[in-house]
Amino acid sequence: MATRVHVGMETEMNEKGETEMVKSYWKTRFLEFFGKMKRFPGWLWRTIWKVGREDPRRMIHAVKVGLSLTLVSLLYLMEPLFQGIGTNAIWAVMTVVVVLEFTAGATLCKGLNRGLGTLLAGSLAFLIEFIANISGKVFRAVFIGAAVFLIGAAATYMRFFPYIKKNYDYGVVIFLLTFNLITVSSYRVENVLKIAHDRFYTIAIGCAICLFMSLLVFPIWSGEDLHNSTVRKLEGLAKSIEACINEYFNGPEIKENEETSSEDPIYKGYKAVLDSKSTDETLALYASWEPRHSRYCYKFPWQQYVKVGAVLRQFGYTVVALHGCLQTEIQAPRSVRALFKDPCIRLSGEVTKALMELANSIRNRRHCSPGILSDNLHEALQDLNTAIKSQPRLFLGTNNNQATNMLALAAAHAARENKQQMDGHSVSLSSVKTDSSALMEWKTKRVSEQAKENERKVLRPQLSKMAITSLEFSEALPFAAFASLLVEIVARLDNVIEEVEELGRIACYKDYDPEDDKIVVRCERPSVDVSKNQLPTHATD
Amino acid sequence: MATRVHVGMETEMNEKGETEMVKSYWKTRFLEFFGKMKRFPGWLWRTIWKVGREDPRRMIHAVKVGLSLTLVSLLYLMEPLFQGIGTNAIWAVMTVVVVLEFTAGATLCKGLNRGLGTLLAGSLAFLIEFIANISGKVFRAVFIGAAVFLIGAAATYMRFFPYIKKNYDYGVVIFLLTFNLITVSSYRVENVLKIAHDRFYTIAIGCAICLFMSLLVFPIWSGEDLHNSTVRKLEGLAKSIEACINEYFNGPEIKENEETSSEDPIYKGYKAVLDSKSTDETLALYASWEPRHSRYCYKFPWQQYVKVGAVLRQFGYTVVALHGCLQTEIQAPRSVRALFKDPCIRLSGEVTKALMELANSIRNRRHCSPGILSDNLHEALQDLNTAIKSQPRLFLGTNNNQATNMLALAAAHAARENKQQMDGHSVSLSSVKTDSSALMEWKTKRVSEQAKENERKVLRPQLSKMAITSLEFSEALPFAAFASLLVEIVARLDNVIEEVEELGRIACYKDYDPEDDKIVVRCERPSVDVSKNQLPTHATD
Repeated sequence: MATRVHVGMETEMNEKGETEMVKSYWKTRFLEFFGKMKRFPGWLWRTIWKVGREDPRRMIHAVKVGLSLTLVSLLYLMEPLFQGIGTNAIWAVMTVVVVLEFTAGATLCKGLNRGLGTLLAGSLAFLIEFIANISGKVFRAVFIGAAVFLIGAAATYMRFFPYIKKNYDYGVVIFLLTFNLITVSSYRVENVLKIAHDRFYTIAIGCAICLFMSLLVFPIWSGEDLHNSTVRKLEGLAKSIEACINEYFNGPEIKENEETSSEDPIYKGYKAVLDSKSTDETLALYASWEPRHSRYCYKFPWQQYVKVGAVLRQFGYTVVALHGCLQTEIQAPRSVRALFKDPCIRLSGEVTKALMELANSIRNRRHCSPGILSDNLHEALQDLNTAIKSQPRLFLGTNNNQATNMLALAAAHAARENKQQMDGHSVSLSSVKTDSSALMEWKTKRVSEQAKENERKVLRPQLSKMAITSLEFSEALPFAAFASLLVEIVARLDNVIEEVEELGRIACYKDYDPEDDKIVVRCERPSVDVSKNQLPTHATD
Repeated sequence: MATRVHVGMETEMNEKGETEMVKSYWKTRFLEFFGKMKRFPGWLWRTIWKVGREDPRRMIHAVKVGLSLTLVSLLYLMEPLFQGIGTNAIWAVMTVVVVLEFTAGATLCKGLNRGLGTLLAGSLAFLIEFIANISGKVFRAVFIGAAVFLIGAAATYMRFFPYIKKNYDYGVVIFLLTFNLITVSSYRVENVLKIAHDRFYTIAIGCAICLFMSLLVFPIWSGEDLHNSTVRKLEGLAKSIEACINEYFNGPEIKENEETSSEDPIYKGYKAVLDSKSTDETLALYASWEPRHSRYCYKFPWQQYVKVGAVLRQFGYTVVALHGCLQTEIQAPRSVRALFKDPCIRLSGEVTKALMELANSIRNRRHCSPGILSDNLHEALQDLNTAIKSQPRLFLGTNNNQATNMLALAAAHAARENKQQMDGHSVSLSSVKTDSSALMEWKTKRVSEQAKENERKVLRPQLSKMAITSLEFSEALPFAAFASLLVEIVARLDNVIEEVEELGRIACYKDYDPEDDKIVVRCERPSVDVSKNQLPTHATD
């Protein structure tokens, strides 16, 4: 009985405690919400400011959209205009909302796709309407239904064709939309030709306003973006290599975190290059729709920019591998690095210079300086070679000092953890014994008790890294990899130069003039991440 | 005079010749066109077949779209349904065209965005209508124009906010569209609330049909795609490494073309990994909208798949660097490679095995085998280490034989081209002399005569490559780079295992059971490139 009362009291107390808890929970939630609301205007303002600062053209674009919408609304708001067009003016409004894109090329591409799709769908719908008109109402409904199904399935399937998808995807969607619109309404409305005509007419007005706005009022060119992003990628790679070499020879020797943080200047430099494929291709596609703005060239070779981008990505992967040398488990000792510091810094300096020269040549639309593959680069390569040859001792792996230390360390680590005796098949290699025991321990642990997840997580990831650090590789091995990658970078630089020169040739860049470099005005604007301006182009009608 | 006649005759003949030429030109063009038309049906059929074979779900999707369109058309075609809804049913048709996407997640995301945008815009438009109603007609027009401008600019600007852009971009576009539609038509139409109401109502019907079709009729899940693409990426990397090692030790020693051809199995293996970032993120975004289809987990951790993807990309860059060792200018001689063939093949075999085990564990949604970081991997590392230590001679660079040959070759090449005497600053390093002379020659050539572009193109790109091959680097240098990258791959494998295990933990994969592996049914379907199914989501209204 006593227990029951006790239980009852406990329940009551629990309930009381629960309501208290619920109360305090809601209070905290409310306070949190209130705090958030108070911080919201500040956050909003900061976001607005940041987005605008990153690329002021975004502001311009927003104002342009607002202006176009107001303009197109006049069709509705002004009496004389409305008399001419009527309620169909609403299609024009819709067109402006969905066609006006950030860059001129994208707007042109969408506008023309929209016009073409509407035109095609109108003709086809008219044809089907003509056939359906012949017979009775029920047959007509069935025929329309069948036509909608067939055309719908066929058009959707066509959107998967690579060529259609790349160039005319939007056009197909609009085609489908208009076709359905006209065919289905033709069942109820008599004058279906008028619908098609009005729709096309008002869409044309909408497109005209969009084209006017995007081509003539502060135009933003995709081609320009592509051009600038190529320059920035070259500069980014140059900075990456520079930072990489600096860190290798001067920076902290052992880095704790394996992950590439976004703050890392090396990572920041090549990041834009690695994931540039889709952005490049989209920009080049839109740019190909833009009217040429060069007097000399018949057609601007946007595809060549894509090629340069591909070569730069290949180049970038080597830079990533070089960066990997800073983060790897087998590090060359500082003494070894110091021996080769000067030739390496010199070589990377030359590579950086060449990349910057390429960037400048593209920026100023001129051929690159003939001295780009300079003797200096050549001499730097020779120096590195001489330096490596002069130190044959290093490549012998005689210096067991460090490796021994590492083994001792690994053994101590394993002994600390190794409280339970291992069993299973014994490993014959004596030198790996300590590591293997840790491995075995982990394995038995993991199978027997899954609960000790945390402990496992601390121990396990270290294992193969320990295995690597404990190996007595020649000291030269990691440095050899570094040097080899550096030489590889020089070799790949060749491909980059080749493609950039090809670009200069096709795009009719002006000749190199040594005087040019003296009057270069470097505008150090914050670099714009072009990919962030790619508004997802969902917009149909 | 004679000359003049002559000139006249010539002109006449020219004209005759021109008309002939024009005729034959048109004839060829016509024949070409005719041939193309004849080949068109065959091409079309092949494309249709290929697109369907690559991923049969595309067919299903196309049929689903056709079916939904027919269903929604019934609103218009069937008398009783039309009585209830009226001509506004056309909005439902439009909704189906633009909302029904390839995967269920994408459809859900778009449908909800569309509903939300319409609802918000309707409320706001009603508010503005209420204010505008107070005063006279002219003020009303101005007020509406100003509202359209402000809301249009603000909404467009908001689309650049990263958070909005990622999650609600489509919603903002629909918001803008509906807002303009309602506000502008409110100027002419009295009952604006009815417009808003009808639009929302019919859009809801359209969305319902889309959701029914995409969730219940042969649903295609983004999450499933993401899952499978992760498995395929792991397998691709494994195959890449295997092919890489094979080619390094058995394949052709010198490859002619620097470019990675699409046929290359090594390139094919890691290609999908490198450019997977945007596809992964899109799939994860859509997958997060999908209802969970696991009984055990509260929420499926799609973000963890993105993390695995990031680690795999990092891993992939190292594989690219390894592939670079096959294409580089400084190649390790076959004799050196043969010395380390066995341990390298063994090590890479272990890595491949681990990757395949990871792929299998994800495929079967189970934890990976505890033996994944097996002793074998460990022993293989040791073997490689022993092999390298046992050959100290190699790291001395004593074998000048090959390098001398290369120098001789370079000298011969330069001498053949070197017909004009070079001037300018002389290079003191004697060993680079031959190459430098070629370099100088190129430079003088390029400055003096730009016309000989072709000749230059043949000569120039070889230069820095020649410079590299002529260097007498130690023979071990290129092999050291290869070995170091191989070890680096083992180290990075750790990160991959870590993230995959984390995935298994969060996603509540089932425990490892050795019996499982025996009943694995490997379905060798042609691997689908998921990114190709990502229809660009342009679709507004």
